[in-house]
Amino acid sequence: MSLSDLGEFGLIERIIERLGEAAAHDILVPPGDDAAAWTHDVGATVATVDSLAEGTHWRRDTMSLADIGWRCAATSLSDLAAMGAEPGPLLIAAQLGPDVTLDDLDAFADGLAAACRCFGARIAGGNIARAASTSFSATAIGSTRDGSALLRRDAARPGDAVAVSGAPGAAGAGLTLIEAGRASEPAAVELVAAHRRPPARLALGRAAADSGLRCAIDVSDGLLQDLGHVAAASGVAIEIEAAALPLHPAALALLGGDRALALALGGGEDYELALCGPAATLDALGADAAASGLPPLTRIGRITAGPPGEVAALDGSGGRIDPASTGWDQLR
Amino acid sequence: MSLSDLGEFGLIERIIERLGEAAAHDILVPPGDDAAAWTHDVGATVATVDSLAEGTHWRRDTMSLADIGWRCAATSLSDLAAMGAEPGPLLIAAQLGPDVTLDDLDAFADGLAAACRCFGARIAGGNIARAASTSFSATAIGSTRDGSALLRRDAARPGDAVAVSGAPGAAGAGLTLIEAGRASEPAAVELVAAHRRPPARLALGRAAADSGLRCAIDVSDGLLQDLGHVAAASGVAIEIEAAALPLHPAALALLGGDRALALALGGGEDYELALCGPAATLDALGADAAASGLPPLTRIGRITAGPPGEVAALDGSGGRIDPASTGWDQLR
Repeated sequence: MSLSDLGEFGLIERIIERLGEAAAHDILVPPGDDAAAWTHDVGATVATVDSLAEGTHWRRDTMSLADIGWRCAATSLSDLAAMGAEPGPLLIAAQLGPDVTLDDLDAFADGLAAACRCFGARIAGGNIARAASTSFSATAIGSTRDGSALLRRDAARPGDAVAVSGAPGAAGAGLTLIEAGRASEPAAVELVAAHRRPPARLALGRAAADSGLRCAIDVSDGLLQDLGHVAAASGVAIEIEAAALPLHPAALALLGGDRALALALGGGEDYELALCGPAATLDALGADAAASGLPPLTRIGRITAGPPGEVAALDGSGGRIDPASTGWDQLR
Repeated sequence: MSLSDLGEFGLIERIIERLGEAAAHDILVPPGDDAAAWTHDVGATVATVDSLAEGTHWRRDTMSLADIGWRCAATSLSDLAAMGAEPGPLLIAAQLGPDVTLDDLDAFADGLAAACRCFGARIAGGNIARAASTSFSATAIGSTRDGSALLRRDAARPGDAVAVSGAPGAAGAGLTLIEAGRASEPAAVELVAAHRRPPARLALGRAAADSGLRCAIDVSDGLLQDLGHVAAASGVAIEIEAAALPLHPAALALLGGDRALALALGGGEDYELALCGPAATLDALGADAAASGLPPLTRIGRITAGPPGEVAALDGSGGRIDPASTGWDQLR
């Protein structure tokens, strides 16, 4: 058996098993959730780490070091958002390959600072080391307010509705246009920004927890793949209505409906939130969204008692769509 | 100006300045200390991140992946020890180069687990990603008990004594012997272990804080260099008596006195603690050490009101030793 046989999530399971007593067992959510969380006397502390490696997660020809700094903060903060946590300190570990210059590092720090300003987070520390290739890791530590519940991926129940924030597929559409040399087209601006400067839906996550919702995940690996994690952890099935997906108008206009749909289902790197819970609660949260400065929230499907772990995207006539791309697992 | 002009600590200062408001300002110790710490209602939470990159911090011909797993935990936990904190959850980010196999990852996890068992720490989460080269980052999050002070690097005062735990230089001696093909010599066992399976002096750090000490640093960059950080942060000078250094008997026997001394002053990677405070407090802590299962503690010098940031190693006649090696800064 090789690394690629297991894939990222298989490897994580394998390591947790191998760690035995060394794997924390007083954590409030099972291993594999967006972040680790544990109690202290007021609320819970929530922590997560994410890495951005050159060649795997970014390339110099598609984004600047400033963009990478932004993403470095946003990806970890998005995990806090998916737990309903307030952001606390961030710690950054920078492994710098031989080609990294001081200007690069300055740009990285600028992007990091811009994201922190945008998301209300702070860098509390870090580490810099030379390495054979470049990667950055961000640890985000957050907390929930006293008495506030965490948003978990194992809390979806049959009968719940499923909603998603923003326009999933926008980041994938942005990357597609960048790679096609179309990044400077005026209509592409929002899509390119979705790829290079993704959001972290912290306010939405907190509002969701406050409204009584208990289940969320961030859509970073692709909508179908991430909903698959919810379905597996909750022991439920999920049906998505393709026609309900809030595709980005520019993605539709520039790439066409089929491609926009495939990217929405499997493109990944959107860092939007998928929320599960009572339809009325989701609708109320969505109705509130515009007034509260939250991103749009769209109901896209439902939780069923079908085969645990199954996620299906349905076309208008109830048939199943076989998406060309269903997210990506870095280690496969 | 280039990365290597600034060096690691210069780069950190530069980034903190560039981050502006994005650098956490409600942290209990100034930027650049061993770990970031902030209050919650009971005690303080303490967090730190460290990276181990292949080629920079380890090579496959000098240590196994299991050793690297151990070191990955130990290096971050050592920073918690140097703050006087209890260990809490660890988060690991693994960037895996193309040559990393499943067996490698298993060995890494085994070494990580062994260190966690030894040091009473737990892995709470992490991230795995493919990368062009291999590196591992560990974030350690700890806490101090309610009312317990942190050990800081800016709290040394003229008149304080300086003590160090264990036998600094042992790790450097171990690496020297490994590189010379002498790792299997029976007399080298402890030195090789000091390099491959370094300690994290958590119990000593907590005992030091409990005894009223307020100043510590972990000796990971070399004794003189790390004491230089204490001297600079505290605005004091430090004098070390070379004859007082607790050199490892095996290092003396296998490498000779001059080399053992140079490694003790500048070898780095020992992960022992240097403590500053009243001589009587240090002596009481050291007298207690054997009975409490703590490592030996040796007084090696004193804090003076000399030029801020200056560290001098004195020979028996009061002359200054110019150490062949004075620690290493990864980016130089």
